[in-house]
Amino acid sequence: MIVILKPEANDALVKDIVSQIEGLGLQAHLSRGQFRTVIGVVGEEVKVDPEHLKSINGVEQVLPIMKPYKLASREFHKEATVIEIPCPNGGMVKVGGGHCLAIAGPCAAEDEGMVHQLAKEVKAAGASVLRGGAYKPRTSPYSFQGHGEEALKWLRDAGRENNMPVITEVMDTRHVAVIERYTDIFQIGARNMQNFNLLFEVGKTRKPVVLKRGMAASISEWLMSAEYVLSQGNRDVILCERGIKTFETALRYTLDLSAVPVAQANSHLPVIVDPSHAAGDRQFVPALARGAIGVGADGIMVECHDNPAKAMCDGPQALLPEVFAGLMRELKMIARTLGRNFSEAPAR
Amino acid sequence: MIVILKPEANDALVKDIVSQIEGLGLQAHLSRGQFRTVIGVVGEEVKVDPEHLKSINGVEQVLPIMKPYKLASREFHKEATVIEIPCPNGGMVKVGGGHCLAIAGPCAAEDEGMVHQLAKEVKAAGASVLRGGAYKPRTSPYSFQGHGEEALKWLRDAGRENNMPVITEVMDTRHVAVIERYTDIFQIGARNMQNFNLLFEVGKTRKPVVLKRGMAASISEWLMSAEYVLSQGNRDVILCERGIKTFETALRYTLDLSAVPVAQANSHLPVIVDPSHAAGDRQFVPALARGAIGVGADGIMVECHDNPAKAMCDGPQALLPEVFAGLMRELKMIARTLGRNFSEAPAR
Amino acid sequence: MIVILKPEANDALVKDIVSQIEGLGLQAHLSRGQFRTVIGVVGEEVKVDPEHLKSINGVEQVLPIMKPYKLASREFHKEATVIEIPCPNGGMVKVGGGHCLAIAGPCAAEDEGMVHQLAKEVKAAGASVLRGGAYKPRTSPYSFQGHGEEALKWLRDAGRENNMPVITEVMDTRHVAVIERYTDIFQIGARNMQNFNLLFEVGKTRKPVVLKRGMAASISEWLMSAEYVLSQGNRDVILCERGIKTFETALRYTLDLSAVPVAQANSHLPVIVDPSHAAGDRQFVPALARGAIGVGADGIMVECHDNPAKAMCDGPQALLPEVFAGLMRELKMIARTLGRNFSEAPAR
Amino acid sequence: MIVILKPEANDALVKDIVSQIEGLGLQAHLSRGQFRTVIGVVGEEVKVDPEHLKSINGVEQVLPIMKPYKLASREFHKEATVIEIPCPNGGMVKVGGGHCLAIAGPCAAEDEGMVHQLAKEVKAAGASVLRGGAYKPRTSPYSFQGHGEEALKWLRDAGRENNMPVITEVMDTRHVAVIERYTDIFQIGARNMQNFNLLFEVGKTRKPVVLKRGMAASISEWLMSAEYVLSQGNRDVILCERGIKTFETALRYTLDLSAVPVAQANSHLPVIVDPSHAAGDRQFVPALARGAIGVGADGIMVECHDNPAKAMCDGPQALLPEVFAGLMRELKMIARTLGRNFSEAPAR
Repeated sequence: MIVILKPEANDALVKDIVSQIEGLGLQAHLSRGQFRTVIGVVGEEVKVDPEHLKSINGVEQVLPIMKPYKLASREFHKEATVIEIPCPNGGMVKVGGGHCLAIAGPCAAEDEGMVHQLAKEVKAAGASVLRGGAYKPRTSPYSFQGHGEEALKWLRDAGRENNMPVITEVMDTRHVAVIERYTDIFQIGARNMQNFNLLFEVGKTRKPVVLKRGMAASISEWLMSAEYVLSQGNRDVILCERGIKTFETALRYTLDLSAVPVAQANSHLPVIVDPSHAAGDRQFVPALARGAIGVGADGIMVECHDNPAKAMCDGPQALLPEVFAGLMRELKMIARTLGRNFSEAPAR
Repeated sequence: MIVILKPEANDALVKDIVSQIEGLGLQAHLSRGQFRTVIGVVGEEVKVDPEHLKSINGVEQVLPIMKPYKLASREFHKEATVIEIPCPNGGMVKVGGGHCLAIAGPCAAEDEGMVHQLAKEVKAAGASVLRGGAYKPRTSPYSFQGHGEEALKWLRDAGRENNMPVITEVMDTRHVAVIERYTDIFQIGARNMQNFNLLFEVGKTRKPVVLKRGMAASISEWLMSAEYVLSQGNRDVILCERGIKTFETALRYTLDLSAVPVAQANSHLPVIVDPSHAAGDRQFVPALARGAIGVGADGIMVECHDNPAKAMCDGPQALLPEVFAGLMRELKMIARTLGRNFSEAPAR
Repeated sequence: MIVILKPEANDALVKDIVSQIEGLGLQAHLSRGQFRTVIGVVGEEVKVDPEHLKSINGVEQVLPIMKPYKLASREFHKEATVIEIPCPNGGMVKVGGGHCLAIAGPCAAEDEGMVHQLAKEVKAAGASVLRGGAYKPRTSPYSFQGHGEEALKWLRDAGRENNMPVITEVMDTRHVAVIERYTDIFQIGARNMQNFNLLFEVGKTRKPVVLKRGMAASISEWLMSAEYVLSQGNRDVILCERGIKTFETALRYTLDLSAVPVAQANSHLPVIVDPSHAAGDRQFVPALARGAIGVGADGIMVECHDNPAKAMCDGPQALLPEVFAGLMRELKMIARTLGRNFSEAPAR
Repeated sequence: MIVILKPEANDALVKDIVSQIEGLGLQAHLSRGQFRTVIGVVGEEVKVDPEHLKSINGVEQVLPIMKPYKLASREFHKEATVIEIPCPNGGMVKVGGGHCLAIAGPCAAEDEGMVHQLAKEVKAAGASVLRGGAYKPRTSPYSFQGHGEEALKWLRDAGRENNMPVITEVMDTRHVAVIERYTDIFQIGARNMQNFNLLFEVGKTRKPVVLKRGMAASISEWLMSAEYVLSQGNRDVILCERGIKTFETALRYTLDLSAVPVAQANSHLPVIVDPSHAAGDRQFVPALARGAIGVGADGIMVECHDNPAKAMCDGPQALLPEVFAGLMRELKMIARTLGRNFSEAPAR
């Protein structure tokens, strides 16, 4: 950590600050410039809250040198993490370290028939994991909120039928247990990226967690939220970029594709991209998905529907399964160009 | 709702769209321009999800005319809501409709002594409600997470001692009951503004809720979150602006003071401002607090500490109680200029 | 245009508003809902400033239906524009409609030797157009501001030597003539995207213009700036996305790759991407360039330098020519996958 | 400056970096931590471009300690600057250091009569400086672009008639001379905040410059643009906050009132606020103006019009003169509460 003192800091104040720093079990290296005195703080940075130092009288600025996350950091874990997700009837799919993952399915699990139908279609099109919402975070209290546990059963059955692992969103600490019972991967939505108790709870399970980036979360805050999960012993975190809020309103969110290589440079965790929620408009989903694989994402998560005009939520962004199939062909070619491969779930 | 069709929409398609709209129990008024056909949709807008219409083939754009919130809207509730908060030993404080509220206290309730000491000081300085954190949302899993139920007791006792209602943050649906037992006002933090289940739970209680604006939430989304609480029968929602994320990094967040009059124009609910979290630096808290009362806010929420350099969290932004007292004198004068008054808690 | 009246608009007011609209030579279609009266305005939308209507007493909102740009719009020009740029010694390079363009060279033209050396290297690596700054927009008045006309000569000569068209930035209406004399393409920088007089001046020339998106410009504002150039008779505008300002500070700007397909959907003009300025860090330039071609960009503009540590500006983001050559090989493969091709300048 | 090396930097590399730093005439203080080597660079920071150091192989990060601006900085100029603006017929108005300035007038100078009429009205209401546009920056090339030199004459005459200094916007280096001839204060608009040649040109005059903050400019970039003007010897720069681009679309821009105290803390220059362009809607202008004076702004710039529905531009945000007069009464009371006073132009 670097501590920069205010210009008016005199010898007595400098001495006092140094002794406060040493009192925290750290070493202080003094360096006096023409306009400022700077103290290099050596020791275990993670143990000291920069806020403590910034609150000391006479301190102008505190600049951390190390990242605030540790288990999520590539600095202490050079190898890309490969996460293996078991399929219901045997085999596994992989994500990370050259393995790309395609997750697809409806926004919401609307009824048993549609879930089975879509599962079959997206698997045929090249998806390895089935997505579907049972508990839906809706902006309006008057909107459809999901079919709950019943939907979880439909998803589990469709996953078994097609030998696909199933992912669904968890929104409430009270739902962790029931979702764990039926599904294979937890999804933490963008709005809950800093629901810290929820992160602790999924961290205590041993199922993979797809952690969506909050729409106003910096990459560093995103990795800190991953750290919450990792700190509880669950090592299987998959980061998912899904668009951030900016001044641009042409699409629902601004997909930050540069977050993919930046997160990969700073962390060993796989990073996938959700182009559907970012675009909010199916016309732009394929381009964004191709861009995602172009920048080096470890996979995509896409919403599909057989009849978008009847969808209970997010119809405008749902791809028809046949469009998704065409997209998957392009994505596989781009991935191969970059030395990567989409991981496929074994037949049932 | 206004539905704008794509330029290529021919007669057959227009007819089909009209019949779909009428099938939803709505009337369709057709208007053909040179380049576009426009359909004015008349009926109960809140019942129809714009997404349904946007998913119809041939539709280019759907423009809602009505706000998506109803109970929170000033359109159906012209009068400003005045919320009355009972004090522990009798009497009440008010907020809204010309009554301003000053909430102050430490970021975290650190120990029994400091809570009592600060409660006394901020009351003397002009605060009517005591704030203090028992469950703390922290970016890092390694940071201090609050003293939990013990802290709730210290806060309750200090509130009784000084006849001040107490506010504390609730982060988890599982904590609603215990927090309700000890304190008088729920605070929903910015990170949980769209934790919809939590909103439902506090909506089922009958204690006032301070709802902080999410750091990437539009004013409309913020009012939709208020609608979640109101929809459960709890009418006592106090909105709190606390800074949004923008490209500017000079302060921790960009305090959006224009959100105050905009929210007040669109909603009858009181709107207060938290300058402490927005600034993240005590040097700028007084100016922002004065700006808040200048734009017409219904109150402020400020963090104070007797020894910021020892604070367990957010020390850099805590005001010394004597600085807070000076600030309150200025705020009262500005409020009076604008025909408003700070509501005071009766002596114990 | 759609005009929505305030709820309190009574019959007399509605009549008055209708007559004001008709007074502007437009037709007014009235539609009364339960809560609002809506007027559909039919006529030449581009002739009426929405602000006029919004200023009328009793009007709540004015919603334009048509885009505010016309010459730049794909609505009236369905085919993608292919721009042909003549090479100094014969032949031409193309951009748009399936032809991708690679522009490369140093940030600033530092001296004659380096310009010639880099021109040769980037051409060998696959670039068709040479970039180089003669007038540099620098945040600080104390930074190197470019070598001016002398640098223009170096660039012209290096372009001739390698049969490459040359692009350089114009920052001042007073420089348009001299830059036109020496170079082949004008670049309007992000900071000047709304320097409207400058847009008019380059619009009066007949040389292609690369128009960078302002760091806070919406896609619609960007196309309006293109309209400024087009309105003067210059049809050869190439749009260039180069990153926008958001809350994320990991890289210098947030590259908005979704702007590429959105701009292409709304306009017939080619859209290229500058990953160098967006990243500000060479480590991330190749990934962003691959993402750009993945989302369907019509080309890239990249900064190269033989010795970045000695660069007079933007050294941290400059690619070594050999790295650029490797990147071009990947980009050509991705483009081919998507049915596109990089346009090559003929040998000299 | 602080230079942080990459973890892999070995002794040879460290030695090499140190010698490169010393080669630039600076001293290097080495400090080795557990994970990183840090070099404190001592010397004239302003002379060394951080980019040079960042481009050196083995360097991870470069953290400047000093601000990049010097003449604009409060560090070397502790006293608030008071700018005195001469009135046409004698006397002067002041801004800065406790003197607040009210600038008012129409968006555009539409015709001679309206300019004279509004000048008289805004002066009576309490404004000291007359604003009016002669060259208008418009998003659309098809919109009214201002009456040019003729409008300048109207403004000059109305200024003389009412003994008010006149401010108008300059958009083009070629217009500096003519605007200087007729008016008293240059306005640099938000879109031209980084039109560096224009900044140099007004810097060479000896008339005050109101420098609006760009809608995506950080406070630091804003002060760097002030530095451009100051560096040419013109010391009379007045900063003007007018709203930034954020995700919030309720108003035209998000007025960043926290920029006022932050800019004042970092610079000795006066800081005023333009609530009209930020709001884009007259309903919210008074609240924002009150907030501006509340946070401590040194003045406001407000648009007025006698008949907003007929205004040639920005009608929706124009205040009626009588509303402006009522607002001025409130602002004077708030200013007095904070120990400040509005500076008044002497009668003619």
